[in-house]
Amino acid sequence: MLERIGGPEDLKKLTPEETKALAGEIRQELIRTVARNGGHLASNLGVVELTLALYRVFDFPKDKIVFDVGHQSYVHKMITGRYKAFSTLRQYGGISGFPKRGESPYDCFETGHASTSISAALGMARARDYRGEHHQCIALLGDGALTGGMCYEALNDAGNSGTRMIVILNDNEMSIAPNVGALSARLTNLRVSSEWQNAKSAMHRFRRIPLVGKPVYKIAHAGKTLMKIALVKGDSIGFFEALGFEYFGPINGHDIPELEKVLRQAREFDGPCVIHVKTKKGYGYDKAEERPEIFHGTPPFLVESGDRAEVPADYSSGHRMALTLTEMAETDDRIVAITAAMPMGTGLDHFAEKFPKRMIDVGIAEEHAATMAAGLAAGGMRPYYAVYASFFQRCYDQMIHDVSMQKLPVVFLLDRSGIGGEDGQTHHGLFDLAAVLPVPGMTVLAPCDARELTQMIRWTGGEHGPVTIRYARSGADVPGRKDGPFTPGKWETLRAGKDAAILAMGTMVRQGLKTAELLAKAGIEAAVINCSSLRPLDEGCLRRLKGIPLFTMEEHMKTGGFGAYLGQWCLERGAEPPRKVFAVEDVFIQHGSHGRLMQDAGLDPETMADKILECLRKRRG
Amino acid sequence: MLERIGGPEDLKKLTPEETKALAGEIRQELIRTVARNGGHLASNLGVVELTLALYRVFDFPKDKIVFDVGHQSYVHKMITGRYKAFSTLRQYGGISGFPKRGESPYDCFETGHASTSISAALGMARARDYRGEHHQCIALLGDGALTGGMCYEALNDAGNSGTRMIVILNDNEMSIAPNVGALSARLTNLRVSSEWQNAKSAMHRFRRIPLVGKPVYKIAHAGKTLMKIALVKGDSIGFFEALGFEYFGPINGHDIPELEKVLRQAREFDGPCVIHVKTKKGYGYDKAEERPEIFHGTPPFLVESGDRAEVPADYSSGHRMALTLTEMAETDDRIVAITAAMPMGTGLDHFAEKFPKRMIDVGIAEEHAATMAAGLAAGGMRPYYAVYASFFQRCYDQMIHDVSMQKLPVVFLLDRSGIGGEDGQTHHGLFDLAAVLPVPGMTVLAPCDARELTQMIRWTGGEHGPVTIRYARSGADVPGRKDGPFTPGKWETLRAGKDAAILAMGTMVRQGLKTAELLAKAGIEAAVINCSSLRPLDEGCLRRLKGIPLFTMEEHMKTGGFGAYLGQWCLERGAEPPRKVFAVEDVFIQHGSHGRLMQDAGLDPETMADKILECLRKRRG
Repeated sequence: MLERIGGPEDLKKLTPEETKALAGEIRQELIRTVARNGGHLASNLGVVELTLALYRVFDFPKDKIVFDVGHQSYVHKMITGRYKAFSTLRQYGGISGFPKRGESPYDCFETGHASTSISAALGMARARDYRGEHHQCIALLGDGALTGGMCYEALNDAGNSGTRMIVILNDNEMSIAPNVGALSARLTNLRVSSEWQNAKSAMHRFRRIPLVGKPVYKIAHAGKTLMKIALVKGDSIGFFEALGFEYFGPINGHDIPELEKVLRQAREFDGPCVIHVKTKKGYGYDKAEERPEIFHGTPPFLVESGDRAEVPADYSSGHRMALTLTEMAETDDRIVAITAAMPMGTGLDHFAEKFPKRMIDVGIAEEHAATMAAGLAAGGMRPYYAVYASFFQRCYDQMIHDVSMQKLPVVFLLDRSGIGGEDGQTHHGLFDLAAVLPVPGMTVLAPCDARELTQMIRWTGGEHGPVTIRYARSGADVPGRKDGPFTPGKWETLRAGKDAAILAMGTMVRQGLKTAELLAKAGIEAAVINCSSLRPLDEGCLRRLKGIPLFTMEEHMKTGGFGAYLGQWCLERGAEPPRKVFAVEDVFIQHGSHGRLMQDAGLDPETMADKILECLRKRRG
Repeated sequence: MLERIGGPEDLKKLTPEETKALAGEIRQELIRTVARNGGHLASNLGVVELTLALYRVFDFPKDKIVFDVGHQSYVHKMITGRYKAFSTLRQYGGISGFPKRGESPYDCFETGHASTSISAALGMARARDYRGEHHQCIALLGDGALTGGMCYEALNDAGNSGTRMIVILNDNEMSIAPNVGALSARLTNLRVSSEWQNAKSAMHRFRRIPLVGKPVYKIAHAGKTLMKIALVKGDSIGFFEALGFEYFGPINGHDIPELEKVLRQAREFDGPCVIHVKTKKGYGYDKAEERPEIFHGTPPFLVESGDRAEVPADYSSGHRMALTLTEMAETDDRIVAITAAMPMGTGLDHFAEKFPKRMIDVGIAEEHAATMAAGLAAGGMRPYYAVYASFFQRCYDQMIHDVSMQKLPVVFLLDRSGIGGEDGQTHHGLFDLAAVLPVPGMTVLAPCDARELTQMIRWTGGEHGPVTIRYARSGADVPGRKDGPFTPGKWETLRAGKDAAILAMGTMVRQGLKTAELLAKAGIEAAVINCSSLRPLDEGCLRRLKGIPLFTMEEHMKTGGFGAYLGQWCLERGAEPPRKVFAVEDVFIQHGSHGRLMQDAGLDPETMADKILECLRKRRG
C-alpha cells in the first residue's frame, strides 16, 4: 500500500481501516531502513499514527509543520513522495535524517537542535497574518524539548500575540513511574494526588540510591516529568491556558480517528492552542519499546535480536573521559560532572555509576548548564561540562560572560567535534574554535586520541581557569605517541622531517601521518607535529621550525580556526605563516560517512599530499 | 548616617526607624550620583528597602546573593564598604555599575546579561551542599528577566533537585493596567477575574490602536504581565509550586519590617522557595516614578527637572536605522522589525510610531527572536532584528542554524558594537565578527557612520541571504564620503596616499583619518580606506594596493576579527598580509569613557601613528 502513496492526497482517500494497515506497513519500513542505515527509530515509531492523522486533516504544504529537532520526521518523509528514496536515508547524497527545505516543499523549516519549533511556527504564523493568508502553522515537539528555555520565550510571545497556531506536545515520556502519565488529573489536586506523590518519591528514590548501569538516564526524565506536570493540566486552568493557549487533550496518540477529531477542532480555533498527545516511543517494535533510550538514535542493528554495533569502549573518547574523571573524583571531592540530557552520548553515565550524586543532568538546557557550572565553580567546585560541540553553540554567551569573564575553573568537554557523519549539518562541530579562541583567559586543547584526552583531563586537576577540550567521538590510539603528563604549550613531534612540517590538530594528526607517508614516497620528508595545545601555542616549537614550510590541518571551519589563529601568531612575530591551511572551506557540510565527507572537504591524505607537493614545487620554482 | 555604615554588621544594629531614615539617605545619594555619572536609577531606587532588609536578615558574604543583570546592585555596594568610593561609579578605575568579584567579597557572582541569576545561585547552592556548608544562596531578579528562557531551564533543574535556595522575584512592573498587580487572586479564578480581563483587553487595545510616541514600550511589559500572571499564584497551586518551589508573597517591597519577617521564614526553609516582592521602580524620585523607562539606564541629568543630555537624533545610528526602515516599509509590505525588549535602545520605537503592528517585541528573549525571525523569513517576510552586539551572543546557535543554514533573508542589526563605555565588560560588542565571519553565506557589513548605515539598509531591500550589520551607537557623519547606493565588496578611499594604506572599519575610519593626519606631519602619506564590507572583502581594491604596507583598524577582539580575516585572505592569495592589526588585544575591557578605553587599548590615533611609523622604519631598516 505504501508504494501507492504518491503524496498526501492519496492518504485522504483511505478508509480508517486502510489507514491503520498503512501505519503497520510504515512501521515495518522504518524498522527495516533504520536497522540497515542507522538513525532515529523510537521517536519515529511513536509518531506514525500522529503523522498520518495530521496529513489526513491538514492541507500540507499549504499548511506548515515544524518538527522540533527533526528526528521524528521520517514518516512525514515517507508519505510526501520520498518513499522510494527512503532506503538512502542518512547516506551521502540521499535523504537527510532531518527536514531539508531543498528536499521537498513539505519540509518548510529545517531543524536539528531542540526547542526551536514554537519560535519558527510562530514566525510563520505571523508571516501568514501579515500576508493575509489563512493556513495553519504547527509546531510538533516532544516533551524533552520542553526543558529548553527557548520554548518558554516562544510560548510567552505566542500567548501574548494571540496568533492562530497549534503546538502539538508529543508526550512520549520514557516514564519512571507509569502512573505519572495520568495527566488529566486536576493540577489543583496534583500535590495530594498519588500521581504527584509517586513522581516525587520516585525521583527522590533515584537520587538517594547509588545507581548501577542504566538507571542514570532516567534521572533526566524525572526532571521532564516534573516540568510537564507543572505545565499540563486537566480541566482547571494551567500554565498554557494562563498564557492564552487553548488546551486540547490528553489524546491517545495511536488512535487515528480520535486524533483526527481533535486536530479538526484545533484547526479551526482562532488563536494559539496546544494539543497534548500521549504516544509510546518505539511503539510496535518490542526491542525499542523496552529500551527506547537505546533506540533513540542508533547505529545499524539486527531486527530480530535488537543487537547493534557499538563503538568499542576503548576507542570511545567519552567513555575514557568518564573513567578518568571517575578516577580523579575518588581523591578530589570538588569534581562534579554536568550533562544537558546526554548522559549516554557523552559517556557520563559511566561516571554516574560510581558517583550518581556528582553527575547533574539539567535537561536539554545548555545555557543553564554553563551558568550553573559557573555557580558551582564560584562555590569552590570543579565542574566538567560534557556537551557535543554543536550543542555547545547554545551556551556561547554564558561561556564568555559567566565562565570566562570571571576566570572560573569550568572545563568544557566538547565531544563530537569536527565533521560528524550521517546526522549531517546540524550535528557537525565546526564552529567551536572560532567561538573559544578569541576569549581572553580560555585554554583551548584538542587531543589526538583518547589517551591524550585522559592526560589533558588529569592536567585540569591542578589550578587553572576556564578550559575547552575538543575531541572526536572515536579516540583510537595514534601510534608513536609518548605516554606522560600533558603540558599546555608543548607539542609532540611524531615524525621528523626537514622538507616540510605538518602541524595537525585532533583527529587530523592521524591524517597528517598518512599524508607524510605519501609525501615520503614522493621524496619529501615532512615532520608531523601533534598540535594538541591551541591556546597557548607551542611558541618554542614554532621558533625551531623557522625556515621550514608549514602546513596546518584541522577539522574545523577555516575562518576562525587553528590555522588562522596560528597564521595570525606568525604574522605578529614576523615568522613565516603556514603555506597552506587545510580546513573546512566556506560551506555547510552535509550528511554522509565521515570518510566521504572528509574527501569532499579535501581533507583526505591523498588530496592534502598532492596540494603540499604542488605548494613546495611552486616555492622552488 | 550612611557614612557610619562601614559594613552590614552596622546595619543590624539600627532600629527600624533608623533603617527607614537610612533608606531615605541612600535614595538621595543614589539620585545625586547617578545624576552626575549616569547609570541605572529606577531599578536601584526600587530595591532600597529590599536590600536593607536582606542585609539585616542574612549573613553576607557567608550567605550569597546573585543580582540578575546587576543593575540593581548599587544599594548593595553602598552598604558593603563602598560608600566613599561610590562617587566614582562607572568611571574609569572606579566602582563598576555591575557586581565585580574583584571589587568586594560581597560580590560573589558577576552579571550583566539577563536571566542568569537562578542558574548561578543554584550552582552555588549545590556547591554548598557538596561541601557540607549551610549558608543560603539567593537569586534576585526582576520580572523582566522572567521572559528569558534560561530562567525556566534553571527553575526546572532547581525544582527537580530540591536544593535549598531562594529566588526573589522583584515584581517592579511598569504596569499598563495597575490593577493587574493584584497577584494574590487565585490563578484558578484569574480568567474570570477583572484583573485578568483587564490585562487581556488592555493588551488587545494596545495591539489595535496605532501607537504614537512612547506607548510602544509598554507592549513589552504587557507580555511580562501575562507571563507573570501565569507564573505566580495566590494560595492555589501555581507554576512555582508545581515545580517544587515553596511560594511566599506577595509582599510590599518598601515595608522593611514585613520584608524582614518573610525573609526570616524563607531563610529557614529546607528546599527551593520563591519570594514574590512588589516594588515600584523609581520609588522616591517623582521624575523616575513617572517615567521609569527613561530612568532605567540614563545619562547624567538635572535632579530638579529630570532633564538629560541625549545623543542628538541625527547622530544616533539606531534612530537613523529606524527612519530608513520606516521609509522602506512604506513600499515593502514584507518588512517587519524585531526587538528583544529594547524598542527605545535600538531606536525601533520610531519605526513603531508609524508601523506599530510591524514591530514585534518578544521580551528579553534573544534566542527566540532569532528563530522567530527565521520563521518570518521562511514565511515570505523580511525581518530586521535589531539587538545590541553583546546581547546578540545569546542567539549564536540560532543565527548559525535557524537563519544561516537555511540562507534566510534575516538582517541582524548589531547596535552598540565595539567598545562601549561606562557599562563595562558585559556590554562591549567585541566578539560579534568572530561569531559571524566563519558562517557560510553570511554577508557582514560595518558602516563608518549613520549615513552609510542607511545606504546599507536600503541595499538589503533587494534579494539577499542573511546579513549582519554592526554599528556603534553614535553615527556622526564621517567627512569626505561620497553619497550613493551601497555595494557589497566595494571600499571607498577617503584619503589617498602612497606610503601606507590604513584599512579601517566602522568607527575606526574616523580614527584612521586622524592617524593619517598625524602621519602626514611625519612625512608619511597614508591612504585611508573605509572597509565597510567585510564579507565579501573588496578583492579588487586589495589587489590594487599591492606593494603598499597595509594596516588594519577595528573595534573588535584581534582574534577572529577583521584584520585576522583579511590577513587570512592575503595569505591564501600570496598577497602581503597587513603589517599590523590594530584591534583589542587578549583582555576583557573594563568600564570608563570610550576615549579613555580606546587609549588603553592602544586604539587612539597617537599610539597608532607611532606604531605605524615604527613599523615602516623597521621595514626600511
